[in-house]
Amino acid sequence: MSVRTPDPDPEWTPDSDPPGPVESVTPGWLSDIELAEIRGRLPLLYVEAVPVRVDGLGQVTELGVLLRATAVGEMTRTLVSGRVMYGETVRDALFRHLEKDLGPMAFPQLPLSPVPFTVAEYFPMPGLSAFHDDRQHAVSLVFVVPVTGTCEPRQDALEITWMTPEEASSAGVGAEMEGGRGVLLRQALASVGALR
Amino acid sequence: MSVRTPDPDPEWTPDSDPPGPVESVTPGWLSDIELAEIRGRLPLLYVEAVPVRVDGLGQVTELGVLLRATAVGEMTRTLVSGRVMYGETVRDALFRHLEKDLGPMAFPQLPLSPVPFTVAEYFPMPGLSAFHDDRQHAVSLVFVVPVTGTCEPRQDALEITWMTPEEASSAGVGAEMEGGRGVLLRQALASVGALR
Amino acid sequence: MSVRTPDPDPEWTPDSDPPGPVESVTPGWLSDIELAEIRGRLPLLYVEAVPVRVDGLGQVTELGVLLRATAVGEMTRTLVSGRVMYGETVRDALFRHLEKDLGPMAFPQLPLSPVPFTVAEYFPMPGLSAFHDDRQHAVSLVFVVPVTGTCEPRQDALEITWMTPEEASSAGVGAEMEGGRGVLLRQALASVGALR
Amino acid sequence: MSVRTPDPDPEWTPDSDPPGPVESVTPGWLSDIELAEIRGRLPLLYVEAVPVRVDGLGQVTELGVLLRATAVGEMTRTLVSGRVMYGETVRDALFRHLEKDLGPMAFPQLPLSPVPFTVAEYFPMPGLSAFHDDRQHAVSLVFVVPVTGTCEPRQDALEITWMTPEEASSAGVGAEMEGGRGVLLRQALASVGALR
Repeated sequence: MSVRTPDPDPEWTPDSDPPGPVESVTPGWLSDIELAEIRGRLPLLYVEAVPVRVDGLGQVTELGVLLRATAVGEMTRTLVSGRVMYGETVRDALFRHLEKDLGPMAFPQLPLSPVPFTVAEYFPMPGLSAFHDDRQHAVSLVFVVPVTGTCEPRQDALEITWMTPEEASSAGVGAEMEGGRGVLLRQALASVGALR
Repeated sequence: MSVRTPDPDPEWTPDSDPPGPVESVTPGWLSDIELAEIRGRLPLLYVEAVPVRVDGLGQVTELGVLLRATAVGEMTRTLVSGRVMYGETVRDALFRHLEKDLGPMAFPQLPLSPVPFTVAEYFPMPGLSAFHDDRQHAVSLVFVVPVTGTCEPRQDALEITWMTPEEASSAGVGAEMEGGRGVLLRQALASVGALR
Repeated sequence: MSVRTPDPDPEWTPDSDPPGPVESVTPGWLSDIELAEIRGRLPLLYVEAVPVRVDGLGQVTELGVLLRATAVGEMTRTLVSGRVMYGETVRDALFRHLEKDLGPMAFPQLPLSPVPFTVAEYFPMPGLSAFHDDRQHAVSLVFVVPVTGTCEPRQDALEITWMTPEEASSAGVGAEMEGGRGVLLRQALASVGALR
Repeated sequence: MSVRTPDPDPEWTPDSDPPGPVESVTPGWLSDIELAEIRGRLPLLYVEAVPVRVDGLGQVTELGVLLRATAVGEMTRTLVSGRVMYGETVRDALFRHLEKDLGPMAFPQLPLSPVPFTVAEYFPMPGLSAFHDDRQHAVSLVFVVPVTGTCEPRQDALEITWMTPEEASSAGVGAEMEGGRGVLLRQALASVGALR
């Protein structure tokens, strides 16, 4: 089974990521075959986001986790995530993937700083880090992003679940998170002083 | 001349800070004489904030700096700042001083994390750090805080000036900042990736 | 019972902290009675350190936790900690307390940055934060500090226990940590990417 | 002229980076032609380091900057930098490039945290960020790394220059830094509280 980390939707393919047939309009983007080849040769750069709700004093009250069905019908949980494209800033990529996964009415408050709260390294081979991805070596800049609007996951089979900090750091949720991302939820909580 | 760092308003006294006559209702707060004595004995804990305006991608476009007249009529620039009171969280103190200095309609977005972008140490004696305060040894947790509403400084003789990142990091503005806080503006810009 | 957080040794008194009778030589330091009074009036500024061992690539392999007996004979665990004195930099205070608690041969590598990995707020009243201290309102800047030498706790009844990241983040160790500091161990691990 | 950012040595080619003829032994590494093609299609992941000397309290006293001659005989300054390879952790890449650029006796103290002090984005097209690289879109995780040993740049035409914080943040040095990296020196200083 292929864990499709960190592209969270089962129907995602490299050329569905940008709108339309990209090879003709955007030479920097890649066909399926090209991307598959590169995946065995280079680390790919990703961004990921933990969407949160905050109270009036900036304290995190809830974390949003995406739920989806894999190709074999298993339910799994993941974060907002996706590749940084050629010529795209990290900030633009973060915004693009937040909109792709949470819809246009989520109104995310993007981070002031380009520095992530952690750098998650995904490897196809085990033992190199806490994170794994069968498909590729991916290096992901991970951010906590408050959202103030309505989140409506736009891809098939996706739903967003809001959890309290206690729920998000539980072993049960951790076990359901794809690719080892339960650790990312706990690191996110630690970065905002809400780990218990 | 007494640089009133980091309490930015000339009329501020310890018991004007909380509303009403505090000695009777809040034994944790201090009279003028008590505070003056403690100022020579202990480091006092402060919070400071650099208010900013951000664009839709979270990038800082402007920084807000307070302008005021000192007791001797000099104009000087400073940041939002004030003491953390007994029994008050850092987050509550930050919110209280933002409201005190920017008014109730500033709508600050408080930081997710309790970790400041820098810790500024103010000493009455020279040479120990980049920051000085004739009155006291103060240790200040400094945050960048986006504001989305209208800022109306509420104390006499205070005005807020909005500057671009370039202006805020200029030598001219740095020289006008009270107690060495020009460095704080540049550190704030560095922390959001906007130092040039 | 008085939890002596965050001064880890039972025999500690304000004037044993600096060497010799301090009132006569250092007017900025405080007698027992003065400190007791101030403790009910102002937040006190502390530094704390999680001593760690690292491998050649900078990865944390072990965390050091202090073990001591309380006045009533209970065993409890805590971190390197202590007050920042008047006129003392945060960095100097950190160095002084590392030497006080780990001995002169610990060879700590002090952090490059004055920014702590977290700010821990201790209150005598419950519910305001994850941390409590019966004696006082203390605000603590907490750092992870690699030590390369030999640690020999210098105060009575103190011993240092080295733990793996897994042990340090366990519920058992967390329950033994004074004042809620089990959370600090997990936050420390998160800050170095070693939380699991 | 090709600015070779962020690979600092003029003779560097993709297959000189790992030792020996890599295509045969390490399928994840790339030939010159392959790398050239990929450079127009994907952002490449880099690490960079600002080597520093620190005093006994952890304060940065000097920063190390590499000097080299370009193919056309110009002198230019840069940082320790290089690509993250397939299957390699960020930490391993950082160590490998520190050794490549500073020699085996530099004894770098690698950062405890995988989080860089800044993320520098290099684009071939102007205006997207403060950094540029004619060759490629590169995203670089930048760290401050204390070195305690002797630095002997191992590649031809490389020399390391040690500068005080004041010198490193001067406009003159900034103008000599390749690809806009003068900003990185100032951001590095801000991250350790040494920007003035």
